[in-house]
Formats: sequence, C-alpha cells, structure tokens
Amino acid sequence: MANKQILVSEVGPRDGLQSIDAILPTEIKKNWILAMVDAGIQEIEVGSFVPASIIPQLADTAEIVEYAITIPNLTVAALVPNLRGAINAIDSGAHKISIPFSTSETHSIRNVKRTHEQMFDEIKKVSDYINNNNCSTHLEVALATAFGCSIIGEVPEDLVIKSAEKIMEAGSKEIVLSDTTGYGDPATVKKLIRKLQSAIGKDKINGIHLHNTRGLGLANAFAAIEEGITTIDSSISGIGGCPFAPGASGNIVTEDLVFMLDAMGYETGIDLEKLFSIRNILSDAMPDEPLYGYTIDAGLPVGYKY
Amino acid sequence: MANKQILVSEVGPRDGLQSIDAILPTEIKKNWILAMVDAGIQEIEVGSFVPASIIPQLADTAEIVEYAITIPNLTVAALVPNLRGAINAIDSGAHKISIPFSTSETHSIRNVKRTHEQMFDEIKKVSDYINNNNCSTHLEVALATAFGCSIIGEVPEDLVIKSAEKIMEAGSKEIVLSDTTGYGDPATVKKLIRKLQSAIGKDKINGIHLHNTRGLGLANAFAAIEEGITTIDSSISGIGGCPFAPGASGNIVTEDLVFMLDAMGYETGIDLEKLFSIRNILSDAMPDEPLYGYTIDAGLPVGYKY
Repeated sequence: MANKQILVSEVGPRDGLQSIDAILPTEIKKNWILAMVDAGIQEIEVGSFVPASIIPQLADTAEIVEYAITIPNLTVAALVPNLRGAINAIDSGAHKISIPFSTSETHSIRNVKRTHEQMFDEIKKVSDYINNNNCSTHLEVALATAFGCSIIGEVPEDLVIKSAEKIMEAGSKEIVLSDTTGYGDPATVKKLIRKLQSAIGKDKINGIHLHNTRGLGLANAFAAIEEGITTIDSSISGIGGCPFAPGASGNIVTEDLVFMLDAMGYETGIDLEKLFSIRNILSDAMPDEPLYGYTIDAGLPVGYKY
Repeated sequence: MANKQILVSEVGPRDGLQSIDAILPTEIKKNWILAMVDAGIQEIEVGSFVPASIIPQLADTAEIVEYAITIPNLTVAALVPNLRGAINAIDSGAHKISIPFSTSETHSIRNVKRTHEQMFDEIKKVSDYINNNNCSTHLEVALATAFGCSIIGEVPEDLVIKSAEKIMEAGSKEIVLSDTTGYGDPATVKKLIRKLQSAIGKDKINGIHLHNTRGLGLANAFAAIEEGITTIDSSISGIGGCPFAPGASGNIVTEDLVFMLDAMGYETGIDLEKLFSIRNILSDAMPDEPLYGYTIDAGLPVGYKY
C-alpha cells in the first residue's frame, strides 16, 4: 500500500489559545504539551513569536519552546510573522518556523501589516538568515486565506498559485495550504492541491491547515489525504472558536481527526484513550471555554481495534 | 462533467423526531414539511408506519403522508418495518417505502423482532403485494448497521454483501447504505459502496444514510459522492441526537450538507437562506432540543454565489 502514515500536527497551543481570552499559565501549558507527547503527538506548534502586546496569551512562547525541545520525539514548531520573530524562534531552539502569508493582500496588511511584496522580502530575509547562520531550522510558509478571505471574499486561484511560486523562490522549504476562514470544500481542496503540486512540486506541499467553521473540516482533511497530503494541523477539542462566527468551532478537532485516520487504517502513533484524557487539562484550566468534538462523547465503537 | 446533481433526502420528520421525547403537533409537522419544500427540498421521509405504542412521536404518519402527497414536486417517503406497515403506507399514498434491514441480526431482532430469514420473507411479501396490486410505490431497503453495530460490534463485510444480494432477490428495487451507528469512515464507505455496486449493480445503490456520531458525517458523504452516490439522507439542524451517546449528534446536518454540495458545484435545487430560516420552526416547537450545524452560525462566505 502507498503511504499509510499521517502526521497530526497539533496547533492548539498556538492557533487555539490565540483566539481565547483566558491566558493559560506557563506551567499548565507545559503539562499540556507533555501530556500530548505522551499520547503520541509528534509535532506541536507551541506558540507565536509576536509582541506580547498583540497576543498576550502567547507571551511565554520563548520559554515554552525552550521547554518543549527538551521532550524527546517532538518536533517543536512556532509561528513567526517576520525576521525578528524568526530570530527569536531560532534562538529559542524551535525546530520549525512557519510564516503566515495571506494570499488576500488586504488580510495580509491587517494581519502582519505587510503587502505581498514586503512579505516575499521578509521570507527571503528569514531564509537568508537561516542559510547564512547554518541553522537547522526548517522554514515553511502557511498559504493563508487560500480558500477565500472574510474581508474581501474570493481570492483568485491564480494569485494563490503565483504566491506559492514566489514564496518558494524566496527560500521557503515548504508550503502549508491554509483554510484560515473555513471557506474550503473538498472539491476545491483537491483542485488547489493538484495545482500547487504541479506548480511547485509534489514534495513541497505536504501539509494542510483547516478550520471547521462550516462543519466541513474532516471532509476537507479526507480530500487532502486523497491528494497525497501527509501532515494535517488540528487542535485538541477544537479549542479556539472563531472570533467572527459565534458558535462556530475553530481548528479541526484532533480527537475526531485521529479517530478518522485510525478507522481508515492510517498510522498516527497516537493513543486515542490517552488523547481523550487530555481534555481534562483544558476543562480544568479553562472551565468557561467550549470544547468541541464528537468521538470523545460518543465513545469508540464497540469492539474497536486501535 | 459527469452527474452534478445530488438529491438531498430529508429524514428529520422520521429519524429526527423518533429520537426526541417531545411529540410535535401534526399542524407544526405540516408547516415544517411545507417550508422545507418551499426551500427546495424534493424528497422527505415524513414518518414511520409502526404502532403508536412503540413510536408515539410518529403516530400521525398516515395523516402526514396524506397531506404531504398534495404538495407539488415532493417525493413522500415513509419507513415501514413489515407488510402491515407497507400496506398502510401504500393506502396513505406514500410514493416510496423503505424497509430497515439490520445486517447485524442481533440488532434486527431487537429492532423489528425478526431474524434475517424472516426479514427476507417480509421484503418478498411487500414486493409481491406491490406487484400483485400494480402499485406505483417504490420499494427500497435500508441496509442498516452496515458499518458496525453498537450491540455486537463489527459486522462482517461478506454478510453485508450477501444480505444486499438476498434483499434484491426478495424484490427490493434499491438498497440504501445505512451507517445507523455512526461507525463509518470515508475509506470504508468507499470500499463498501464499490463492493455493493459490483454485487448488485451500480444503479441499485444510489443512496446513503449517515449519522454524524463521531463527526465524520460529511467526510463520509463526500466519500460516497466520489463513488457515484447521488442521494444523501440528512436532517435539518441534525435533530434527533443519538440515544446511546450523550452529546453526539444524530443525522448529518442538512444545512451543512447543502453548503458543502453547493460549494463543490453540485445542484441541489435548495435555497440555503430559506433552509436556514426553517430552524426557527424547530426552535419554536422544541425549545429544549439541541440543534446542530455550523454553517447557520458562521454564515455564508463573503461574496458567496449560490
């Protein structure tokens, strides 16, 4: 059989927490990360290197990275919006850094205060810094709002493809396709992955980042897997919510994703029962925060082998 | 392009209501059905012909069928467990009757008090009755618990295939693949559809009935569409819940399904805004009942064309 391994890349400590008012104490974050690794999670985006004034929930990212890299068998990723953030992430020892590039330029300007041209420059600066300093840090760029933008609406497919090409020229090692707004559907996911694969090379697009805003998250994940995607971002209990859509959940739910992959016969290395138990850490730490997911409530099927 | 039409078959008034304690007044059911047809829904399973002592929520099924068949452009379906129910459904004027056949014999005995052999006999009796009386009623059989049973666990694939063959021999016109327990995953959905297609003929399996018990409902629907399925059961606002799994939702949510199909470029004939407004009928009539779905809360994407 072809590839039967999928890497579940947990983004709860970054994408999840940044949308939640509560500021989680650093010690709880550390326990949470350790519990996730114990459950078999092999990659975690643990925070963002952005000013604490902008995202106070992630102000302790450097300390979290420094702790997380001491845990065996874990790839520690962090989001960085610019060179300054990248240098801080590299200094902290992050294995992987991810720069968000909004294919909607309007969103880019609002999100990171940079035009597309400025972002290509910034990506090049980060790439040059890594190369000039012989860093082992892996640089990837998240192709954000690739399925549409909640400010301007549709983002032309040509712009998405051209952006990806320029990002790779600027020195990114990899593109992660990102449905920031939960606008994606399975047919468009498949079409866009195929076009990106032929534009930048099949081995340059391995990951996808999905939101479950309109309930299509797992359908989109399945569509992506069918096109050869091998890394899927998700967050435990779907934490984070969606600031612009009350009642709509945030990232796809790790527990349900792992159940789906497991049931389909993919190896994730993750122990579902241990994964379920992590919810307690979150409900204790953030009792007012809604937690999402179906499998944890329904339970595993009778006679389920995993 | 190949087939770009999908029939969304609404099962809320049957599968939804039978799992809810509240008994909806007949007049409200009629208004609800009319509003659904006004929103563009073309097929509705409006009830079950079972004794009122067993499912009191559906005791008015005959009256509902008699009303629904007067609405233009609507196929009126009803569930019937046996010949007596079938005769009642036919006498009421139902266009379509569906017999549930549990591939798990243990579930069959608990659900309809009949073994597999007894069910094949019953299906044959219903088919003979339709033929002998020159009825135009369309007979289909729902292959229930096809992805596993919450009593016995795994249901062998061979048993599912052989059951389908015997059901067709007994005179059913069509098989609907039914994930009664929400155990299905997209890979198994695809595999089982392919095997059924080669066993009984591609045109004999057009529909699928899915539950969102573990959050995989739309992923399974997408997988089914990829294998040529053209009719998908769903319930408005996912009403019904799942009696054995607190917190787990029931059927897949019509609103989210229609959004997914719409976004993928399929024609459903359904107006999403009108569909959303139907939720008010349900929340007014059953204020304590949880309603599910993401798209209705998140809203349609900016600039969305539908």
